[in-house]
Parts: sequence; structure tokens; C-alpha cells
Amino acid sequence: MKKDLARIVCKFGGSSVASIEKIRNVALRVKSLQEQGDDVAVVVSAMGDTTDELLELAAAIGNNLNPREMDALLATGEQQSAALLALTLDKMGCKAISLTGWQAGVKSDSNYSKARINGIDAERVEKELDAGKIVIIAGFQGLSSEGDVTTLGRGGSDTSAVALVASLGAKRCMIFTDVEGVYTADPRIVKEACKLPAISYEEMLEMASLGAVVMQPRAVEFAMLYKVEVEVRSSFNLESGTIITEVADMEQQRIVTGIAHDIKCAKIGIFDLPDKPGVASLIFNDLARAGVNVDMVIQSATREEHNDIAFTVCSDDLPLALPVVEKLVKEIGASGMAYGDKVAKVSIVGAGMQSNPGVAAAMFAALADENINIEMISTSEIKVSCIIEESKIEAAVKALHKQFELEQING
Amino acid sequence: MKKDLARIVCKFGGSSVASIEKIRNVALRVKSLQEQGDDVAVVVSAMGDTTDELLELAAAIGNNLNPREMDALLATGEQQSAALLALTLDKMGCKAISLTGWQAGVKSDSNYSKARINGIDAERVEKELDAGKIVIIAGFQGLSSEGDVTTLGRGGSDTSAVALVASLGAKRCMIFTDVEGVYTADPRIVKEACKLPAISYEEMLEMASLGAVVMQPRAVEFAMLYKVEVEVRSSFNLESGTIITEVADMEQQRIVTGIAHDIKCAKIGIFDLPDKPGVASLIFNDLARAGVNVDMVIQSATREEHNDIAFTVCSDDLPLALPVVEKLVKEIGASGMAYGDKVAKVSIVGAGMQSNPGVAAAMFAALADENINIEMISTSEIKVSCIIEESKIEAAVKALHKQFELEQING
Repeated sequence: MKKDLARIVCKFGGSSVASIEKIRNVALRVKSLQEQGDDVAVVVSAMGDTTDELLELAAAIGNNLNPREMDALLATGEQQSAALLALTLDKMGCKAISLTGWQAGVKSDSNYSKARINGIDAERVEKELDAGKIVIIAGFQGLSSEGDVTTLGRGGSDTSAVALVASLGAKRCMIFTDVEGVYTADPRIVKEACKLPAISYEEMLEMASLGAVVMQPRAVEFAMLYKVEVEVRSSFNLESGTIITEVADMEQQRIVTGIAHDIKCAKIGIFDLPDKPGVASLIFNDLARAGVNVDMVIQSATREEHNDIAFTVCSDDLPLALPVVEKLVKEIGASGMAYGDKVAKVSIVGAGMQSNPGVAAAMFAALADENINIEMISTSEIKVSCIIEESKIEAAVKALHKQFELEQING
Repeated sequence: MKKDLARIVCKFGGSSVASIEKIRNVALRVKSLQEQGDDVAVVVSAMGDTTDELLELAAAIGNNLNPREMDALLATGEQQSAALLALTLDKMGCKAISLTGWQAGVKSDSNYSKARINGIDAERVEKELDAGKIVIIAGFQGLSSEGDVTTLGRGGSDTSAVALVASLGAKRCMIFTDVEGVYTADPRIVKEACKLPAISYEEMLEMASLGAVVMQPRAVEFAMLYKVEVEVRSSFNLESGTIITEVADMEQQRIVTGIAHDIKCAKIGIFDLPDKPGVASLIFNDLARAGVNVDMVIQSATREEHNDIAFTVCSDDLPLALPVVEKLVKEIGASGMAYGDKVAKVSIVGAGMQSNPGVAAAMFAALADENINIEMISTSEIKVSCIIEESKIEAAVKALHKQFELEQING
């Protein structure tokens, strides 16, 4: 009989391993999981501030540093926390072993600082699990085909964990974090917000990309691709969290699952663009080359051979975007531009939306009732987003939470 | 044409890379070596306090920690300093690459925390050197045949550097450190002490084991075994240092090369031991099992079926040694014991000693002239050591330095 069915993979983030005391709590949690009869593999991030301290050291050298060497430097953080957790478990009398990314067989491309996992050759991990050990794997890192250490970028440890589940054929992936799960809205804004027992991959991706980051989008994509069921739960208590899974697996398909919001928005408008092919492409190519991620884009209907274009970017990217746009206005012969960063985005997300007409209308009505003006709208099959004045964001989230009766989701 | 003849290996210790500022100085030094036309490989230790900080973290977990995991933890320190030096060189416009121990092909046994290098598979290092890069290797670490990270123990980075010279067929090994070289005596005691232009491996080993640690004995042994010529020199100036080499290569064979001393000595005496086979073996076996390194041993001539035995240990080991000896005195039926830690060892070292009778006598005479009593004596082919009262050690070193005219060594 293969033991694979009893394998689980846990992941603990940086705040869960920020001190030896916290590492001890993680060790107790992992130990109790093993005592329940499962083989346990654990993926860890670097201790709380380690990565920041290493970045600070590097910043003293200069900017735009060699990416291969930055990855070699940063990957040591996770190696340290993995070894410290193994030492702690060993001291508690558990058989445990730490493995670096390359020892765990995590293979990636050479795209330093945001490498993608190509696959995991889990032979060593399997061997150690079969020997009854708790296997602790340094997250966030892989090895390129040239034999160089890479890091996987933001949320990389989540991706390491999901990839490991897929290659071990494990039954479950548990992401332990400092929140209790995925909520119907930010509980700091809506006190009636409920923890969702389950959410689909697609909804989770929309929630994450809209600012409610519980698990990194790349890791969710990976889970969706390999059909890995993930539970996001608190590392500080024993409550069950939120299961991220396929739509079909979910008990009921809600029309609206949650309200997401993002206040780090800025809008830019360009007026009277000549109405000819290639203009939009020119604008967004130049912005991409400057490293600016454009979010929503709205082009107005043509009026007399000219039209306006408006788009939003992350407000952090505004200083990068403005010089690009100012230069383009002159080159293209637009009549001018305007921008503002006192805007925010509020979104409703739900997999059931696609088969329920009138959801967007209900959203607009709820905002109108609160006297909130909508500046831009964008829709996908499972979400509707509106750009509104930043000062109105709390009122908007509360109104929408009530409108779609999300306080009753567990009731 | 092979370029091997123009390859050099440098090693920089922890104090030389203790800050980004110091790493920058190391980078400038390494860059200028490369500009002189040599291919340069650099071995680095961890930054100043890194290893201590990691040890402190581990100490919060407990004592007697799992040695495999301790090595996995500690090896990250050198990986960080190697990456930081590569980042700095890269920023200066030099092509540079950092390699971990396993990437550099350093193979060791599995004797965690004091692993021995079995060999270096230098293919990757060769490839990078041939590509014109400065290759920076994390010292102090290797990879076992099981694929686990090991550390090489105290002085491990020196050993890494010497082993790399041997496997690259490099022409020179330069150990950059915080002293200028090997002196005829401790310059803090003897202001006339001279820096030796050269010293033999054997003399260096004796000097090191006698307390004058400029380069770790294991690394010197390794250099002797592979006939690697090593220069020990300051990382803070451009002065030439001391070359450690074979006796035959040295300009002249001095009778006495240097005066070493060690104040961390303690003596223990056991009285009236029964004069039968196996007694000495029993004593020293038990001490070894307790982890006590015995240095000098003197057994007095037999008088009426009983004799006395006296030996010295490092004063740090005295608390370990005393209970063992007290127990043995009872078991063996000795009449009693005595100990003292207010003693010190002074030694003369010189490869020419073996063919020059009367050197020991000259030493004893010089000590007698200073009214210094000799408590124990031990000799080897190239050294004579005396145990004396600790308070007299400075006077002894000065007197012997003068007696053997060491202030004239460069004159």
C-alpha cells in the first residue's frame, strides 16, 4: 500500500516563524499533525525581518544589483528558518530534517527574483517522509538548470507548497498565516464580515488581484492548474479556515462571495487622442517598458476623429507612469492629460454572477443610494469593479456587504 | 595554452568582511589582483558576527542540538558574505559570481561541525574562471556524499582555500587576515619582534599548536600534504606577509624561528600511582572520553613501586578534568592529587634545532638568568616547551627572544 494518501503539506509564513518562541509553536502544531497519523512536509518562509535585513545590507552596495547574486543572498533566509524549525522539532524528540530548495528537488527557470517552478523531483522528500521524518523545506527558492539558486518572487513559499502537494500526490495543502481565512469583506471595515468556508480558485484570484491578499495569485493559479485543494487558516488558533477549491466542489454557488477593495489606485486620463490604429498599443507598450502595470482601461466612444482614454495604475507606480504619459501626449498630439490618486476600487466577486443578470445593476444602485459617484467601471465574468472617490471606500464596502446579504453567509 | 599557472586563490576571514564598507575594500583588493593578470578565486568566511548571531538563535532552542541541522544553519553565513562580495564586485564593473560549497564541488565526509574535505570537483569553478569571472566561494562548508551540507569546523575557510589551490593547480594561496604575518614572538609582548618572511609547515604547526594562531593547524596540515605554498598577509595594507612553505624552499634554516607562548594552561599531578601496566592508559582514556585534550605528560622515574604523573591541559578544560581525576585517584589507589592554573607554557620553535645540540640548554640558561623556575619540560624535533609560573611569561618570552637574537631576523 502506498502511504501517499496520508501525506499533507503545510506552509508557515514569515510572521509565523518570526522568533524562536513562534517557531516552537509551529513545531508543536506540526508535531500534533504528525501524531494524527499523517506524513507531514512543511514549507517555511524566512523569519520575520530576515529578508528585509538582507535587502538593507544589499541596498548599502547600491541599486540595480546583479539578480543572480541577490537570489543567492536572499535564499539563505529560508534555509535558516528551515534549519531552526528542524532543530526545534528534533529537540522535542521528533525526527525532522530540513532541506534547501535544491535538496528538495525544486526546479525552476532562470528568471531571477521571480523564477517559475518547472517541476519538483521529490525523490529526496519522499525518502525522508518514508523514513518517518517531518520534512521541512526552505520555501521561495529553486534551482535553475544551470545549477544556480533562484527565488520565486512574492508569495513564492505558497507556490513551493502547492507544487510540493502536486508532486507528492498529497491529500491536502494547509497555508498557515496570520489571518483566519478569506472573509466576505475586510473585517476591519465591516464588522459583520464572515469567514468563507470555501471559495473557488477563480474567485480567490479575483479577490487577491483586487487587494485582499491572503494567498498570492501565482500560488492560486498553480493550485488551480494542478487541482490542489488548499486550506488557508490561522497559525495562532485551531479554527478551520477557508478551503480554496474547484467550483463544483463547493456546497452552494453564491452569486456574490465577497467584497474586495483597493485604495492604492491612481487614475490617468489622456484627452483627444487621434483616432487611428496603434495609438493605444503605443501608450501601453511604453508604460509596460517602464515597469508600470496598468489595471483598468476605458476608451470613450469616438467623437469626431478624437477620443479619450483613461486607465488606472497602482498608486506606487504613478511617479513611473507620469513622465511616460507626458512624453506621449506631445508625441501623439493629444490635447492634454489629467491624473489623480485620491481614488479607490471596490469590487464584488462571485462565481454565480455569470448566470445571474442584474448583479451589476444592484451594485450601482447600492452605491447610488449612498451618494457615491462611479468614475470608472470594469467587469469580468465573476466580478464587477468600480473606481470611486477614495474617501467613500468604507461606506461603499459596507453598503455592498449589506446589499448582497453577506453577513448571512454562514447562517 | 592552459591558463592554470596564472590562477591564485585568496581567502578573507570574517573580520575582513564584517561590514559592507570592509567588503568594498576586499573587492578593491581582489579587483587589483585580477588587473595584474591573474585569474582569481576568493574564499570568504561569514561576516564578523553572523555566525555568533546564528549560534545565539540556536542556543535559544537548547543544548546538544542536531549537528546536521546546525551545519545547515551555519553554512548560510558564508553564502551571504560570498553573495555580498559578488554583488559589490559586479557593481564595480567586474564579472563575478558567488558559489556555495556544493556549487564549488567541495566534497566532505559527514562528520558534521568538523567535516573533512575529501576532494574538490572544481569543474564549475574552472568554467567560471575561464569565462573571465572572479569566482567567490563560500568557505567553511562542503557537501557530504548523502547530499547534505556540512561545515568544516574552526579554520574551515582556510582549509577550503588550500584545498581549492590544490585542485585548481593554482600558483599561490593568499590568506588575508587581521595580522601582518607570522612574528618571531607576540609583538604585543616583544616590541622588537620581527615578521618572518617565511616559515616551514612544521614550524607553523608548532607555533599554531602553541597558541600563536595565524592559520588553523588543520589548514596548515592540508597545505603540507598537498605542498601548497601559502602567504599569510594583512587585508588592511599592501605589505607582503609570511610565506608558509617547505623547509628546502626557505632562504636559510634558522636554529630558532620564533617564541610561542600560551597562558591558557593548567597542570594536574597525581601522586604515588601503583607502578603497573595500564595505569597511564586508564587515566588518559578516561580524560579523552570526557573530552579533555591532554597536552604535556611527564612521568617520574619509578621509586619503590610507585610513581608520580603530571600533565597539562587547556585551562578551559580544567573543570571537566578534575572530577575525572578525583574519581581515578580513588579507583587506582593513588595517594592524592594537586592542580593549578597559574602556569603558562613558553616554547622555542625552529626547524634547524634538530641538527644543533645545545639549543635546549641555552633556553634553560636564559630562563634561569631571569630567575624563572621550570616546572615541566617537553621536547619535539623542532621545539622545546617549558611550563613556568604564569606571572613570569612576559619576562620569559622577552628573554628568549633576545637569547636567540630574533630581533635580527630580517637584518
